[in-house]
Amino acid sequence: MRDFLPADKARRERVLAVIRERYRAHGFDEIETPVMEEHGRLHAGIGGDNEKLAYNILKRGLDAEAIRAAAEDPAQLTDLGLRYDLTVPLARFYATHRGVLPTVFRAIQIAPVWRAERPQKGRYRQFVQCDIDIIGDASDRAEAELVVATLDTLDALGLEGGIVRINDRRALDFMLDTFGFPVDERPGVLITIDKLDKIGPEGVVAELAERGAAPEAVEAFRAFLMRPQTLEFHPYGERQIRKALPEGAPDDIVAHLAGIGEAVAAARPSTGSGATSSGATSSEATSAEAGGVPLVFDPFLVRGMGYYTGTIFELAHPSVDYSLGGGGRYDGMIGRFLGQEVPAVGFSIGFERIVDLVAEQEQDAAASIVLVHDADVPVAELLALKGALMADGARVRLERRTKNLKALLERASADGYTSFATVSAGTARDDLELKTLA
Amino acid sequence: MRDFLPADKARRERVLAVIRERYRAHGFDEIETPVMEEHGRLHAGIGGDNEKLAYNILKRGLDAEAIRAAAEDPAQLTDLGLRYDLTVPLARFYATHRGVLPTVFRAIQIAPVWRAERPQKGRYRQFVQCDIDIIGDASDRAEAELVVATLDTLDALGLEGGIVRINDRRALDFMLDTFGFPVDERPGVLITIDKLDKIGPEGVVAELAERGAAPEAVEAFRAFLMRPQTLEFHPYGERQIRKALPEGAPDDIVAHLAGIGEAVAAARPSTGSGATSSGATSSEATSAEAGGVPLVFDPFLVRGMGYYTGTIFELAHPSVDYSLGGGGRYDGMIGRFLGQEVPAVGFSIGFERIVDLVAEQEQDAAASIVLVHDADVPVAELLALKGALMADGARVRLERRTKNLKALLERASADGYTSFATVSAGTARDDLELKTLA
Repeated sequence: MRDFLPADKARRERVLAVIRERYRAHGFDEIETPVMEEHGRLHAGIGGDNEKLAYNILKRGLDAEAIRAAAEDPAQLTDLGLRYDLTVPLARFYATHRGVLPTVFRAIQIAPVWRAERPQKGRYRQFVQCDIDIIGDASDRAEAELVVATLDTLDALGLEGGIVRINDRRALDFMLDTFGFPVDERPGVLITIDKLDKIGPEGVVAELAERGAAPEAVEAFRAFLMRPQTLEFHPYGERQIRKALPEGAPDDIVAHLAGIGEAVAAARPSTGSGATSSGATSSEATSAEAGGVPLVFDPFLVRGMGYYTGTIFELAHPSVDYSLGGGGRYDGMIGRFLGQEVPAVGFSIGFERIVDLVAEQEQDAAASIVLVHDADVPVAELLALKGALMADGARVRLERRTKNLKALLERASADGYTSFATVSAGTARDDLELKTLA
Repeated sequence: MRDFLPADKARRERVLAVIRERYRAHGFDEIETPVMEEHGRLHAGIGGDNEKLAYNILKRGLDAEAIRAAAEDPAQLTDLGLRYDLTVPLARFYATHRGVLPTVFRAIQIAPVWRAERPQKGRYRQFVQCDIDIIGDASDRAEAELVVATLDTLDALGLEGGIVRINDRRALDFMLDTFGFPVDERPGVLITIDKLDKIGPEGVVAELAERGAAPEAVEAFRAFLMRPQTLEFHPYGERQIRKALPEGAPDDIVAHLAGIGEAVAAARPSTGSGATSSGATSSEATSAEAGGVPLVFDPFLVRGMGYYTGTIFELAHPSVDYSLGGGGRYDGMIGRFLGQEVPAVGFSIGFERIVDLVAEQEQDAAASIVLVHDADVPVAELLALKGALMADGARVRLERRTKNLKALLERASADGYTSFATVSAGTARDDLELKTLA
């Protein structure tokens, strides 16, 4: 867990303001839920491995007897927990408030989550997630709106050239079915396929064999994986999606995936030319741009969470080799809280990763001024000068002059101040000489 | 703990953005700390009664033996807790990062805190605090900057006419000294004096007698309290502060309090005329305005927290009879973390109370449009229309037409949308007829 010093905090708030504004413009509405949820809800099996990483809240008012009684069942010691994601709270929120929400509800959630991870580089125990979700729309319109809103937000942050890798859990099922992997082997097989980027096709085949997966299935999958065209499925479109899958892929799945591409292309007519100037280097990015659609069909994209039922996405950017976010369709989950099936799909951007990529922005147009004053200037004079400069729109910091004026001014410059003036007793507003800070 | 639906969440974010912008303009810098602090730090005696209300985090990986061993000492079950205020985390933050902060550090903290209160009206277990603090300045300049920034922020929220009631813990000490209350009785005496607003002078005198306070001291205090001029100390200034205190008040305390008033008056030259139009009704407010300084000296203001060492404030507004915030000087606290005395003073506004007072603002100038479309409009056409309207700066929500169009439009209007258009297959941008939503 981290403290944020002024410069970092200011940058985080600037990035959050852009994300919030863009998502709102796309017709999404922000909501907020408490950081704590009931323990049972957090441990209902929806959160996957994250459930084990939840921070639990100690019950209030436990006496010695109650503590001893809980020795073999520590869950008795807790009634609440900190959320480990924003999806479980959203499902609970929707089930609670459905009656006063639009039929198709487009939610924004921008909030911290907590996971008791072992300390390691780049992993934090408290971090911010930015999720958009569309609840109540089973059509590919929902996926398209999420993708367009996400890419538009990246653009607004100066991160043009974002690419969404896309697949469908149903297409994965069809593929594993075609190759003859038995149903009970599939979760393990998917875990291995998910490593394709890291260990390559040979590595995947070797690991599948080690797992003891059905040999004929592994051999059929190997042959498919080694097809020369397997990793070239662009430009994005129905023909390429069909080529990327084994023969006989169901029409509805292919049409759903192709439809998302058409809608994204229609919503972002300028993507083709705009993205070219973004310095994209990977072949994926270049291909996607050439086709005018910032989508790449990836039949081997898996995504870890067990609750996905259809489309899955991952957000890539040519400047980094890790994912900047992802999401997918989870039509079954809301039903577990509501007792009635409701389609849902979400896209989460990794705020902590994105904030690191966003360049320090230009200083605000408004002047920010340090008034360096002698010790004997009356407070009333100082505050009158400060008020007068603020009335003209400036940001103003007062600093008593110290022996090391240079260090004082360097500190102020590092904190974002752009000019300074010195103040002695009796200095009037018109006497102030503003000088630029280095 | 509460969920916030879209309209409430949008209002909260608007109010937060104003507060953040104003405090920044006044030269304060926002920081952020993790929601969890070490258990020992939260229970070091600084938090007063709030320490008992802390939510504690259950240690991870406790086995049966460890749980049994904690039966008589539940503190062994926990290592972290949720913060119950922003002052303890600020003191820890400052002690950690002092080397990279300005000599006089002006901090903004806007963040939730948690208290396991019994459920009751108007009390929440999770609520947002907005604190500004100045660390490293022992002069009355710090108090004046806090008061001016707070009142300016209220003005910017449309809550003109705010009044700060002010006192000094040292003045209270002097008063109790003068009347002869023994040192060990004083904490109890202050708790009773703090009830003056609620139970009146007779009630205070009766409760002091019941407490068994020294009878001569109670009688002397009674005579002082019943002076006809006791509750009229305006306009704010040195003469009135002297009149409000027993004779012989130390010059430095009186000068400190008067200096704050002079500086506030210099920084807000227009307060006198500006505040007059705010609809202030109480005599306090009127008097403060007449004097041009939105300050009221209140020699009986106590404030609950034990860590205050000097000036104390409370924020009042003529539209409500409860406090909207408060704060004070706590010169001893940072030293407990740093091992070195550092002066500090803070002002906290009660965000949850203020957000309730801020009137619904006008809709954004930008158009917000609902596109009501037939079921058969291709998704690509819909997203192209949405993108075209957004390119002109509009906020756009898509809605599939339902039988009850009226209900759909009422819902959209309640969510802040101002116009709508209907879309059939083939509708082009130029065909759209925008109609105003009721």
